[in-house]
Amino acid sequence: MTETLKGIAASDGIAIAPAYLLVEPDLSFSKSSVDDVEAEVARYKDAIKTSTAEVEKIRDVAKKSLGEEESQVFEAHLMILNDPEFTGAIENEIKDSKINAEAALDETAQKFIQIFESMTDNPYMQERAADVRDVSKRIMAHLLGKELPNPASIDHEVIVVAHDLTPSDTAQLNKKYVKGFITDIGGRTAHSAIMARSLELPAVVGTDSITKDVKNGDMLIDDGLDGVAIIDPSDDQVADYKKKGEAFLKQKAEWEKLKDEPSVTADGKQFTIAANIGTPNDMLGVHENGAEAVGLYRTEFLYMDSSDFPTEDDQFEAYKKVIEGMNGKQVIIRTMDIGGDKHLDYWDLPDEMNPFLGVRAIRLSLKNEKIFRTQLRALLRASAYGKLGIMFPMIGTLAELRQAKAILNDEKQKLVEKGVKIGDDLQVGMMIEVPAAAVLADQFAKEVDFFSIGTNDLIQYTMAADRGNDNVSYLYQPYNPSVLRLIKHTIDAAHENGIWCGMCGEAAGDNTMFPILLSMGLDEYSMSATSILRIRSLMKKFDTKDLKELANEACFVSETAEENEKLVNDLMKKINK
Amino acid sequence: MTETLKGIAASDGIAIAPAYLLVEPDLSFSKSSVDDVEAEVARYKDAIKTSTAEVEKIRDVAKKSLGEEESQVFEAHLMILNDPEFTGAIENEIKDSKINAEAALDETAQKFIQIFESMTDNPYMQERAADVRDVSKRIMAHLLGKELPNPASIDHEVIVVAHDLTPSDTAQLNKKYVKGFITDIGGRTAHSAIMARSLELPAVVGTDSITKDVKNGDMLIDDGLDGVAIIDPSDDQVADYKKKGEAFLKQKAEWEKLKDEPSVTADGKQFTIAANIGTPNDMLGVHENGAEAVGLYRTEFLYMDSSDFPTEDDQFEAYKKVIEGMNGKQVIIRTMDIGGDKHLDYWDLPDEMNPFLGVRAIRLSLKNEKIFRTQLRALLRASAYGKLGIMFPMIGTLAELRQAKAILNDEKQKLVEKGVKIGDDLQVGMMIEVPAAAVLADQFAKEVDFFSIGTNDLIQYTMAADRGNDNVSYLYQPYNPSVLRLIKHTIDAAHENGIWCGMCGEAAGDNTMFPILLSMGLDEYSMSATSILRIRSLMKKFDTKDLKELANEACFVSETAEENEKLVNDLMKKINK
Repeated sequence: MTETLKGIAASDGIAIAPAYLLVEPDLSFSKSSVDDVEAEVARYKDAIKTSTAEVEKIRDVAKKSLGEEESQVFEAHLMILNDPEFTGAIENEIKDSKINAEAALDETAQKFIQIFESMTDNPYMQERAADVRDVSKRIMAHLLGKELPNPASIDHEVIVVAHDLTPSDTAQLNKKYVKGFITDIGGRTAHSAIMARSLELPAVVGTDSITKDVKNGDMLIDDGLDGVAIIDPSDDQVADYKKKGEAFLKQKAEWEKLKDEPSVTADGKQFTIAANIGTPNDMLGVHENGAEAVGLYRTEFLYMDSSDFPTEDDQFEAYKKVIEGMNGKQVIIRTMDIGGDKHLDYWDLPDEMNPFLGVRAIRLSLKNEKIFRTQLRALLRASAYGKLGIMFPMIGTLAELRQAKAILNDEKQKLVEKGVKIGDDLQVGMMIEVPAAAVLADQFAKEVDFFSIGTNDLIQYTMAADRGNDNVSYLYQPYNPSVLRLIKHTIDAAHENGIWCGMCGEAAGDNTMFPILLSMGLDEYSMSATSILRIRSLMKKFDTKDLKELANEACFVSETAEENEKLVNDLMKKINK
Repeated sequence: MTETLKGIAASDGIAIAPAYLLVEPDLSFSKSSVDDVEAEVARYKDAIKTSTAEVEKIRDVAKKSLGEEESQVFEAHLMILNDPEFTGAIENEIKDSKINAEAALDETAQKFIQIFESMTDNPYMQERAADVRDVSKRIMAHLLGKELPNPASIDHEVIVVAHDLTPSDTAQLNKKYVKGFITDIGGRTAHSAIMARSLELPAVVGTDSITKDVKNGDMLIDDGLDGVAIIDPSDDQVADYKKKGEAFLKQKAEWEKLKDEPSVTADGKQFTIAANIGTPNDMLGVHENGAEAVGLYRTEFLYMDSSDFPTEDDQFEAYKKVIEGMNGKQVIIRTMDIGGDKHLDYWDLPDEMNPFLGVRAIRLSLKNEKIFRTQLRALLRASAYGKLGIMFPMIGTLAELRQAKAILNDEKQKLVEKGVKIGDDLQVGMMIEVPAAAVLADQFAKEVDFFSIGTNDLIQYTMAADRGNDNVSYLYQPYNPSVLRLIKHTIDAAHENGIWCGMCGEAAGDNTMFPILLSMGLDEYSMSATSILRIRSLMKKFDTKDLKELANEACFVSETAEENEKLVNDLMKKINK
């Protein structure tokens, strides 16, 4: 029966395909004693055999579709399945303790995992612990007669359905066959949403119950434009959504004509539309979508995708690649934003009761100067290859900014003394994302070359609402007049002090927010690469003279976020008439 | 050898006395098998006997010093020690499994605790689980030859030294002999600090290492005026600090003369100095310190000190007691601020990654309307007995305020229809503690009768720094110009709209903050009762004409919290000359 779920539109586009459930089955079991030990050992050996055959198949598919490197992990799994020390220990445990295979597997695996995990200074052994965990899960599933999802073995078009998608889930997906994502939880800033936009896949997140409502193979419509998921659609619905998808693709083709055009308003005022990136690999999307700059390079991925701190040279190479790739256009690189919801396996940070209000980003950098200085040296060396802006995240006080700048200048001087070339165009800026910094923007503007407003955090702190907590998502209000006042004050303070102001939070690429930002005179709009052409097209519709009053009305007349949505909707109706 | 530790001055006064370490010893043990089972049982029975004698002694001391009710818990402990079902099970376990008494005790206790705890809807059984845990700890300590701290049995003057002090720790302290607190962790807003101020005991918190550096009985100086702890002081130091303590007591006596005086400045301008309270029992301190109002009654303690939701009548009685106790002076009662760091055993709320940015205070009330309405009815009924102000905490949007007011008005109308009398002087106000509300204070001011600024939360959100996280305490800056600008904007907005503005955060009673707030024209200053006379005395020193420029300078000229501290220090030097 047809069922429609409302979620959050997280990535543009329409997909129609069967569901692929990326959901782990319940693998709980009861420990019991067995009388017929031989039969139990046979049952166990059978599970090992089936698991081995399955992993071999996944490895083969993965090698073809994902490449040699991504398939390596399955080779490691096969080694464990063939390792008599591991499989024999389980067999012995069944025989010696006369317990069922599930219990013997669980106890033996726990022992191996504990031993590997206790070698905390050996990243190789840490990875082995993860492998043992994965393999044991697979054997357990076969013992219990359940099926594990095997994303690497997908060989036909599907829409992936999951409670949430983690980076390791998405790494195993064969993007050739995945047509879209639908998840239970998450918002526009969740990993799954960002990943979907970077892959240009339609995505609906936050449906609450999709994993419960859908079965493997059920037909799905994934409407990432309006945040709707339809299970078992009628023929009419399929036809309608096909049309909607085609119309979207046609519009996208229209937008693509703007790729090499400047970003200008109807009255000829020019602004910069830039891209947010996570790794040098994202540069393809940056060029394909005609970005005029990189407005935010999130360097924490360099640390997160690594099994130890990246060296100065590793970082230098990555930064240089992006800077050179932009051919003289500006690249804003943000120093690492680790902490909060981002953790590294190899960096043991204290647990915090409220990590978003804890030691993260620049706070962590200033407490770990050696790691910070390594990053700054890599950035300074890379600055010679183009037009770099170094940006500090989560600055809350002038003392922090001055300390960060002093460390940067110290490293710069040391490099200059050694004869290392530093870029002449190097700029130093800061994120405005802590409310204190927005309130004091007039003071901060005197000590940096630029601001970039980070709306994701600015909103969560101003509204005191965790951006990842579904229960307070109604308070995470980009259009709330309080947030808009802080943004306006920041832009005004920048201009009064002769510096430029950008925005690199999600809001910069939002259709409702954009006209308000334009009316405030924001200089640079940095967003997911796939949003750039849509916003460039939107910009062409506005005459800045007609927008003069919008900012003041949104900040000082409107009292709620809803009023501001209506304000912009009414304006758009007038403009589109 | 003399050692000096620097901490945070959390409660005024000087104490000199030996240390009493309220620190649990390490009770870990190894499981082993025993050959001589009889000897092991004898060892175990011995521990039971010693434990029983010890608990009996504690009960007797507690009954005398703390009263019948507080000593009840020890009767419950004795019942368990005398319960053959419990003690016999341990004895049988030693005999049957031939294991050491420690292991048998631990395994048996775990079983009992699990059974009790599984009865989640039976608060009585939940308490029994806690009792079994406490008793087992005591038996274990005797088995291991270690000593548990027994705060209830303190019978001579001491300074209590602890890692941190929980409400249950302080409940067992014999306040007659406790002369002060010194802790490893915590800030001025920690439970231990608030408790110390309410007991008028000197306290130094956040020394980092006092529990490691001091031994039971070591002589200590506890300087709660300057946040210094001295271990093994020299005779000269003892003499100096005795003098300092006497000078403080002399000043306190001076302040006490102001008890019945109005709160006025040197040029005769009058303001209100009010008290923050947690329970009706705090009214004694309110009167002794000459409070002109109750500026904040934190109703969450009614919920926290109860084993189930307090009934409407229970609440009504508590509110009425406070309102009547003030004899016509205003009482501001805040609706419950549960969630965040405050949890109830009987209310199972979802775990949150950042509870301070989650469902707390008014957010929780609006999601649980039945519980909220019960509280509002109790408040409305109590309003007939004096001058009540109902205050909503954590309001972030006008939609929330309007919804809360609509529910209040609905309950009011229903009561009026039933012929219940509602106070004529009833006011409705809100906390300003979410940055969004401070930024939009001009809009909120049109819809309430008063504001009360909650600095503890306003600072933590504005600076994005958890007020309970020691690692970011350097960012928790009451004097940061950004915080001051938001406070000034709130006060100005209140006055432009003809309503009054108070403050009930810790900052209202702070010597450095006070002159700045006075220069901003804050109307009401609500603080720990024990701070009132100090601030009333300070107020008399200022001529408001001399303060005119202070607010603007602190908000718009100063760039850091340190500059503002210096600004006020310089001013005080001039005034005290």
